[in-house]
Amino acid sequence: MKKGLRAGIDLGGTKVAVGLVNEKGEIVAQNTKPTEVKDGFEAVADRMAKQVEEACKEAKITVKDLAGGGVAAAGQVELGTGTVLFAPNLGWTDAPLGKRLSERLGINIGVDNDVRAATLGEYLHGLDRKTRPDSFFNMYCGTGVGAGYILHGVLLRGAGNAAGEVGHITINHHGPKCKCGNHGCLELYASGTGVARRAREAIKDQPEVGAKLAEMAGGIDKVNAHTVREACDKGDPLARQLVREAGRFAGIGLANIINLFNPEVLTLGGGLTNGLGEAFTSVAFATARERALKSALAHTELVVSRLGTRGAIIGAACLGVMAGAEIREED
Amino acid sequence: MKKGLRAGIDLGGTKVAVGLVNEKGEIVAQNTKPTEVKDGFEAVADRMAKQVEEACKEAKITVKDLAGGGVAAAGQVELGTGTVLFAPNLGWTDAPLGKRLSERLGINIGVDNDVRAATLGEYLHGLDRKTRPDSFFNMYCGTGVGAGYILHGVLLRGAGNAAGEVGHITINHHGPKCKCGNHGCLELYASGTGVARRAREAIKDQPEVGAKLAEMAGGIDKVNAHTVREACDKGDPLARQLVREAGRFAGIGLANIINLFNPEVLTLGGGLTNGLGEAFTSVAFATARERALKSALAHTELVVSRLGTRGAIIGAACLGVMAGAEIREED
Repeated sequence: MKKGLRAGIDLGGTKVAVGLVNEKGEIVAQNTKPTEVKDGFEAVADRMAKQVEEACKEAKITVKDLAGGGVAAAGQVELGTGTVLFAPNLGWTDAPLGKRLSERLGINIGVDNDVRAATLGEYLHGLDRKTRPDSFFNMYCGTGVGAGYILHGVLLRGAGNAAGEVGHITINHHGPKCKCGNHGCLELYASGTGVARRAREAIKDQPEVGAKLAEMAGGIDKVNAHTVREACDKGDPLARQLVREAGRFAGIGLANIINLFNPEVLTLGGGLTNGLGEAFTSVAFATARERALKSALAHTELVVSRLGTRGAIIGAACLGVMAGAEIREED
Repeated sequence: MKKGLRAGIDLGGTKVAVGLVNEKGEIVAQNTKPTEVKDGFEAVADRMAKQVEEACKEAKITVKDLAGGGVAAAGQVELGTGTVLFAPNLGWTDAPLGKRLSERLGINIGVDNDVRAATLGEYLHGLDRKTRPDSFFNMYCGTGVGAGYILHGVLLRGAGNAAGEVGHITINHHGPKCKCGNHGCLELYASGTGVARRAREAIKDQPEVGAKLAEMAGGIDKVNAHTVREACDKGDPLARQLVREAGRFAGIGLANIINLFNPEVLTLGGGLTNGLGEAFTSVAFATARERALKSALAHTELVVSRLGTRGAIIGAACLGVMAGAEIREED
């Protein structure tokens, strides 16, 4: 890879986080601004460029000093061109983000899906080991559930660039309908939206038990994963049960991954994982260990992602300095 | 690969099928004998060698004329050595099958798991296309449910040689306990043993509706997947329903594979698939198409395996003539 600082941009529907990342994967300058999706693609892209310039000023360099950069986008991205094909949270279709930012900043800016970028970040800079694993699977429980899989240094993209949709594997064949059209998808149970849905259902089923949760949120319909987390921290029994259940479902997903891929390292990350913390991950790992085949489990190391929310920024930073599909070792 | 005929051996708990396979993947001589597991490893291995000699006699060649050979074994096989580590249906533990047969026959005999060998056979000789796909997934519904995945010409084995256990992914998180210790595994629903179990349960639940099935088998406890198939062919409503349900469960498994791997080609094969035929595969494919993500589905070709029971023999035949993990194109 090219030497020097790189710009990593985590583009979500709510906020844009920009970081300058050094070759060790450390963030040396950072800023976060609201996305303001309503302003449209050109305005959002322009503000992203300004955030990069601002971070450079903080680091006392110019944009031209950067080795490159990249964007982790919450959406479907076209390989090679960096065009955001479809991003419902941004309201974008066929948005030429890579091209626009590369022109605007005068450096090469790669774009990839956020979960894939975070997987790359974890693989290159998150693992606490001397050599990179031959096979690495990153399951990401956030607003949704996604995944990235790196085998022999190459990220699995699938024939239609659609591999890794672990959130849409059925774990309950007669479960509720998912927005994807399938039924009983993992995402309905082990994501932020899934936890919120199950919390609201539980409160409606048992209003007395759920009174505290509803009160904290300011109404049943305002209960979300953050409310559940706060109530759990305060010892609310229903919230604690909801967190345990979410962990159990995530563990079922992990066991499925272990049995199918038997990866050398399997990390659990994402916003929900970071938010709920050990109450969630301990149950997820215990469930995975209980349910996975012993022959596979014995050779798969289960760990919590170490980079947390920084994973997407750090992974994005590497996108613009990589040559082709293969992930090269750092020089 | 080395030129000439190769011996392919499909070693199951009930029977041993041997075929001589040419470079086009055609079987030119074949014989099948009972395994007679009770006689023990040495006797079974000796009979396998005799079957190879007999096939050579039929093809008017000597064993020394063979380019090599291989065994598709129903069990867990150690990479490289060809030792059968664990094969419950054969009652073997640490059986040095590759070594014994190579010594006995004087040619190189490779050994691999039967589903992986069948996957190799389908990949090399079963697909109706000019170029081999970049990614290929073979789901195998037989007595159990297994799978093989070939990416860029290399079979995915996993860190502990345990990848591909699609039969033990949970599709019903509160489903019955599987013999593997997990709950609601795909294998409980979309395998021969799964169909038999569900048939017996259905007959017990509705004795009148199930009377014909029980009668055909000579008792409820004797009902198996073959009975269900025969009754389905004769138009028995319960048997037809059971076949449709098994197809639906297999389709849920296929949709999970499409969403996770997004392979260029996905084949459905195995003894149950071959036995139940189109009544099963049509429902499986319709369910997969209904449930999989459209973006992934658009780039995954769904096909029924073309080699049927010959897949394991043809794949096994290639094992002893391959160099290392990479699957080379035929010369």
